[in-house]
Amino acid sequence: MTHDITGLMAALPGLDWITDPALVRQKSRDFFWYSPVLKRQLNGARADVVAVPRSEEEVVRLLAECHARRIPVTTRGAGTGNYGQAMPLLGGVVLDMSAMDAVLWAKPGLVRAQAGAKIIDMDRHTRAAVGGELRFHPSTKRTATIGGFIGGGSSGIGSCTWGILREPGNVLGLRVVTMEETPRVLELRGAELDLANHAYGTTGIITEVEMPLAPSEDWLDLTLAFPSLMDAARFGDALASMDGVVKKLVCVLAAPIAQQYFKGFPALGETEAVVLAMVAPPYLDALVPLLARHWGREVARIRTEDAPVPAYEFTWNHTTLQALKVDRSITYLQTLFPAPDHLALIARMEREFGDEVPIHLEYVRLGGRVCCFGLQLVRFTTEERLNEIIRIHEDAGAPIFNPHAFTLEEGGMKQVDAAQLAFKRQADPLGLLNPGKMLAWDDPDWTPDRPGKVYLFPAAEDEAD
Amino acid sequence: MTHDITGLMAALPGLDWITDPALVRQKSRDFFWYSPVLKRQLNGARADVVAVPRSEEEVVRLLAECHARRIPVTTRGAGTGNYGQAMPLLGGVVLDMSAMDAVLWAKPGLVRAQAGAKIIDMDRHTRAAVGGELRFHPSTKRTATIGGFIGGGSSGIGSCTWGILREPGNVLGLRVVTMEETPRVLELRGAELDLANHAYGTTGIITEVEMPLAPSEDWLDLTLAFPSLMDAARFGDALASMDGVVKKLVCVLAAPIAQQYFKGFPALGETEAVVLAMVAPPYLDALVPLLARHWGREVARIRTEDAPVPAYEFTWNHTTLQALKVDRSITYLQTLFPAPDHLALIARMEREFGDEVPIHLEYVRLGGRVCCFGLQLVRFTTEERLNEIIRIHEDAGAPIFNPHAFTLEEGGMKQVDAAQLAFKRQADPLGLLNPGKMLAWDDPDWTPDRPGKVYLFPAAEDEAD
Repeated sequence: MTHDITGLMAALPGLDWITDPALVRQKSRDFFWYSPVLKRQLNGARADVVAVPRSEEEVVRLLAECHARRIPVTTRGAGTGNYGQAMPLLGGVVLDMSAMDAVLWAKPGLVRAQAGAKIIDMDRHTRAAVGGELRFHPSTKRTATIGGFIGGGSSGIGSCTWGILREPGNVLGLRVVTMEETPRVLELRGAELDLANHAYGTTGIITEVEMPLAPSEDWLDLTLAFPSLMDAARFGDALASMDGVVKKLVCVLAAPIAQQYFKGFPALGETEAVVLAMVAPPYLDALVPLLARHWGREVARIRTEDAPVPAYEFTWNHTTLQALKVDRSITYLQTLFPAPDHLALIARMEREFGDEVPIHLEYVRLGGRVCCFGLQLVRFTTEERLNEIIRIHEDAGAPIFNPHAFTLEEGGMKQVDAAQLAFKRQADPLGLLNPGKMLAWDDPDWTPDRPGKVYLFPAAEDEAD
Repeated sequence: MTHDITGLMAALPGLDWITDPALVRQKSRDFFWYSPVLKRQLNGARADVVAVPRSEEEVVRLLAECHARRIPVTTRGAGTGNYGQAMPLLGGVVLDMSAMDAVLWAKPGLVRAQAGAKIIDMDRHTRAAVGGELRFHPSTKRTATIGGFIGGGSSGIGSCTWGILREPGNVLGLRVVTMEETPRVLELRGAELDLANHAYGTTGIITEVEMPLAPSEDWLDLTLAFPSLMDAARFGDALASMDGVVKKLVCVLAAPIAQQYFKGFPALGETEAVVLAMVAPPYLDALVPLLARHWGREVARIRTEDAPVPAYEFTWNHTTLQALKVDRSITYLQTLFPAPDHLALIARMEREFGDEVPIHLEYVRLGGRVCCFGLQLVRFTTEERLNEIIRIHEDAGAPIFNPHAFTLEEGGMKQVDAAQLAFKRQADPLGLLNPGKMLAWDDPDWTPDRPGKVYLFPAAEDEAD
């Protein structure tokens, strides 16, 4: 596929363009290489050029010119995704939102920002301005943008209290530019938010976000050790169930994850499981009897602000990253252990796989119920065995949100989102936004039972790393 | 029983005493008359004198002098209880805490106040000082004190988000004076809080409280109508399960409760069920699709601050009060419909009792799970039938927290609290604090299966209203 990039750039001479091949390649990639499957499939993905707009007006003009030339546009924030969410499968333009990074306003409990604002900068701003902070952040808080988190993420640090990003109330407004001959600028609110929330930029370009704030807290990172994984998991469950305790993180790690892969981590017994928690200081007293009841001990306590490496950078997808730094053969799963039988399921999977799948849990609220996401490590051997591990989980009642697939449907959604598809038909009638990521665009009848229909990036396997 | 009140008053001439018989009688009573059973049992309860201390030092001196003379002391706030929690069964002194009403300090997320502070005054103070408000208040917010709420209450407006008062983190500190020859002043924190939390003042006199704050919100009172009780209950369940939506109240009322008993209430269809909700304004958008999904319609919306009668004064025990204003033959139950089968249980009880027990639900979190408290109205006929209704609920799996009993164990706890009992043995060795309210004091082996052992106030039936 060749695109008229020269004509595009000539039409928009005032726009910031990146053409340096190494930089274009870098900005065409994310952390897809966590997955040996995606590494093989996506390694060749590369834009023709990167555009870095400084205003919504520039976004509108860029989309109009790309529409006129049928050039694909793939939007990205900081590129901290893990499944190629913002990797351009068919070349064209990567739209880098990082220059649109203004916090537009903050009020008690609310903030509005441009999509390219860094989450860490937003938190600094709202903490000082209104004593608030974002309810959620990914483990990549120090680099990730808010628009990238909403477009490509789903949950994270904060989900133990607030649920996932798609749950009502967790995003309040999205300003979106459509990909039409004359792009429209829409403000999505209420039920409409799902049209662009977690859509990988396939249905429009998010330029502004309006988010609820939680009270800002002087968080403490707690490192707690337990005799067994299930002791740690039961403690985590009890902590996550305490509505009165202000907390932002409840992460459970089986041995030997921390022992083997976490550099600079406190000393632990060889078989001890770990809970990493972020708790507000007034609520520490409430944890003392809970810790004793589950045979836990406190290993370390430090203000999140003071930590050389904050606890959250050992959790969620950072757990995998820390392991990969030590052992490149490691990969991972994304699993739902649904309420109310999550603890029994976890115990069963621990027995089933042992050290082949070291268990890593993140406690979340989902539909108002405490349960766990599993981001288990996998000691990878073959794709066949990986698929078998996935199948055994799904047969046991623990669905996998496949981190070894780059489409919306195979990853988080597990089904065609009819409303997103209908909206895309209006907002991107030519299918130019992040092509190849919404299976339903190419096959509206796709179901998870039809893996043969999975859209694969045709040229991906051709290019070496 | 005669007590040396003359000697007591002579020993403490500087204390504010109330001796006027009408005032003493008034301050010896609460809303016990909601229950025809308690009305019969408690109508004669009356203190000999009321003391109104202005400082903790005066509390300490009062308790020392009462201890020396073996005079019972029953503490109260505003007397808004419903089961005689603060009614003196054996005469003696009623200790009225309402003059110790200072807010001591407020910080972001935290407040400390004297026990007699009114909840509405605390909220005004913390809203202005730190943008916060108490997580909870009873439906009697406009008169109740914080110490009375903690000593005699358990939950209320706010419990749909924060759980109940006894759950970890919902009370952070209690300063308590013991009833000994030389009273001690203790600061209870963490697990020790349960020694005085919801103890009816039987284990010590709470003089100060330290409480967490939620962000203050400009609450909206929503009145929503539904075709049936179960539509309303399912909507309430879904709303209460939305962790991302900031809410303080989810109350469900079967027809004809609002139609028949609520004065000045918006017009409703004859058979429509009602949900009363308090929601923060940014989250209204999120409710629109939910309302449609459950066949609901919005009947009224008003800022809680602007409402002539706030929605919360139609909920929790105020529902019963509104009904009693119209029909003195009404009484009520307090029921737990436990998760996860609460909706099925509610449907079953609706079929079982129909209009004999009009259903009133309050959605709460309990142990991290969404479920319902039922404060159903009962069209009272006989004590035998009331007991039968209670038994049918309990047999079906819906325990009753009997509002027709005045002891800790028969009301909320359903069992002997061994830690409270052990603490009382140290803190009140002569059993002078609110005697008759802790069954375990007289019978440490009491269980709910031994109703014959229920302590009854011996003289209560003698006196007419």
